[in-house]
Amino acid sequence: MNAEIIFVSDEIIRGYTTNTNASYVSRQLQTIGIVPDYHTGVRNDKEAIKCAVKTAINRSGCIMVTGDSGLTKDDLTKEKVCEILGFSLDVQVDLLKNPYGKTAGCIVLCNKAIIVLLPESPQELEPMLNHEILPYLRQRQTQTLYSETLDIKLFGLTESEVVTHLKNLLGEFEWGSIATYVGEYEIIVRITINADEKAYAKQQIIKKKKEVESCLGSFVIGYNKDRLEEIVAKLLLNNKKTVATVESCTGGLLAGTLINCSGISEVFNEGIVTYSNTAKMKYVGVKEETLQAVGAVSQQTAKEMAEGIRKCSGADIGLSTTGIAGPGGGTAEKPVGLVYIGIATQEKTYVYELHLKGTRKEIREKTVKNILFKLYQLFK
Amino acid sequence: MNAEIIFVSDEIIRGYTTNTNASYVSRQLQTIGIVPDYHTGVRNDKEAIKCAVKTAINRSGCIMVTGDSGLTKDDLTKEKVCEILGFSLDVQVDLLKNPYGKTAGCIVLCNKAIIVLLPESPQELEPMLNHEILPYLRQRQTQTLYSETLDIKLFGLTESEVVTHLKNLLGEFEWGSIATYVGEYEIIVRITINADEKAYAKQQIIKKKKEVESCLGSFVIGYNKDRLEEIVAKLLLNNKKTVATVESCTGGLLAGTLINCSGISEVFNEGIVTYSNTAKMKYVGVKEETLQAVGAVSQQTAKEMAEGIRKCSGADIGLSTTGIAGPGGGTAEKPVGLVYIGIATQEKTYVYELHLKGTRKEIREKTVKNILFKLYQLFK
Repeated sequence: MNAEIIFVSDEIIRGYTTNTNASYVSRQLQTIGIVPDYHTGVRNDKEAIKCAVKTAINRSGCIMVTGDSGLTKDDLTKEKVCEILGFSLDVQVDLLKNPYGKTAGCIVLCNKAIIVLLPESPQELEPMLNHEILPYLRQRQTQTLYSETLDIKLFGLTESEVVTHLKNLLGEFEWGSIATYVGEYEIIVRITINADEKAYAKQQIIKKKKEVESCLGSFVIGYNKDRLEEIVAKLLLNNKKTVATVESCTGGLLAGTLINCSGISEVFNEGIVTYSNTAKMKYVGVKEETLQAVGAVSQQTAKEMAEGIRKCSGADIGLSTTGIAGPGGGTAEKPVGLVYIGIATQEKTYVYELHLKGTRKEIREKTVKNILFKLYQLFK
Repeated sequence: MNAEIIFVSDEIIRGYTTNTNASYVSRQLQTIGIVPDYHTGVRNDKEAIKCAVKTAINRSGCIMVTGDSGLTKDDLTKEKVCEILGFSLDVQVDLLKNPYGKTAGCIVLCNKAIIVLLPESPQELEPMLNHEILPYLRQRQTQTLYSETLDIKLFGLTESEVVTHLKNLLGEFEWGSIATYVGEYEIIVRITINADEKAYAKQQIIKKKKEVESCLGSFVIGYNKDRLEEIVAKLLLNNKKTVATVESCTGGLLAGTLINCSGISEVFNEGIVTYSNTAKMKYVGVKEETLQAVGAVSQQTAKEMAEGIRKCSGADIGLSTTGIAGPGGGTAEKPVGLVYIGIATQEKTYVYELHLKGTRKEIREKTVKNILFKLYQLFK
């Protein structure tokens, strides 16, 4: 059965809001093997809604309607549903109670099509979809198909490098596909398997996962919704390694990212933002000679910063960042995007030179992701 | 002339990517008075694309097609365009050169409809739309209409409070509308004016702006794309006031947000993340008695932190945050979301108690926005 999502929203059509409900409904339908073919957005206009529903019935088996159509108010009646959707009263309409909020949902059967009206608010839409609608749709499917997906997240490679490494593994095959996508900061390898049985789909996912990881294992930083900072935080907690940070170009973003992980207080106690040279000397003892000889954005400064914060905080690991985030401040010798990151441990201090691209914000965010990844590689 | 946006993308239809091109094209069309009525998303499938175009031609005057349809490769020919869109060869096809990248665009005239093919990448789509397509469409419009929009951003009120204050100002009127929206952290009052002449539209915007601000002036933090941190950074630079930060619950996010503003180094030199009690005493001299008597999350600790960082950094203004961001760590007396923010100046130290809701991340972000807003109110 193929599906179509209809969203009724002036705000989305005018371009002032992005459409997250349609994405969510699409993803959830695929977990029970229903594949969306169309997304149709219309303004909150009676004729436009009728036109969209009519078009959808001719091409889609399952039609999910969401948005501010006034179709899911709690005073919803069969008459009102039929009037708004443009149906005669002989269609079957099942009003759904909504234990999750004030609005109601509704299922309409018209010829061979199933039309589902969903609440607009995600807080009500999501539980109603998952607990009421999906089980109902699964029952009605003639061919039950299970779809399983696994996202493998890679860091430190470009998409084209990933494609080169995976060679023949990529592409569509009879019962699924493997494809690459560019994530927020990582490359995603997505394995999709469709099968008659859930257990078989899961088993095939594991098989394909092994094949992908035999090529690219060392770049894997996590799966599905894993976030790099959470993986690193868990690693630090498991290894009982405390960290402290001293930041110049990232200016608090590294500490801020780590502290977003609940429970981090056991291993993260303090961080310093030393944006000025004075602060670099005052708080973590960077030498004046160093700053004069090679400047704040240098391998040696990153080293002294990391070692300095490690010493003065008493943490096991000292982390430092110094670089030119732009848009101003770049020179021929030290262009915007040149960043040094330092990791000081009891045994050794590591310093890495990065050449990053993007806006000020992107360069700062990429710096944070890079130092977290290096930390992950050192302690995993 | 009404418009329809067609986007061809398996990724969007499957729900793995949100659709930003469609939003952008919608907003830009409205600047020349073309109002989008429909968004149609289809998978990258020949029959589906033809079906979408056919439906669109029957209901929309201007059809913008974007996505990975293969329709904007640089080897594009009239024959290929007609084949993919399902047109006979007697339609008029104008291929557009693209000075902004490798892909081509194309304008097709079919009966009364104008179909525009746009590149997929925003870097190529945006200049082509603005410099080639919009001037072309404006010429072809029988009634030239100019649409002007102004977003007024408010902080410190809920949407329903804004609605109550604006009373009769809100709503649609003959030549425009005033509406409220919930932004990332602010409430947006959007004024839209449609007029025959650009100058008149601008003049009406100014008039309505005054009316809105006569009700809610003290809550206005900026307009359109203004960001709170940039407004505050500008304010500090203009007033030549230096700041330093000491953060507990926000853990670097406040410093990180300020440092995202280019040029901030003139007024921001250092910040400290004192996540532990030890760090609070060591770096900014919070008294042990205070921590024992009233705890780290307290008015007194926020005060001592703000005054401590002001003193030890030599900055004009010391900023502090301490609170319970959750999800753990809350008690009946000090629940998750209880946050104190401190602003120490030469004359006085201000401490504010906040009761915030949301996830750990949201509570931390709201804390940052709140302290920036207080700073704005004190120094504007």
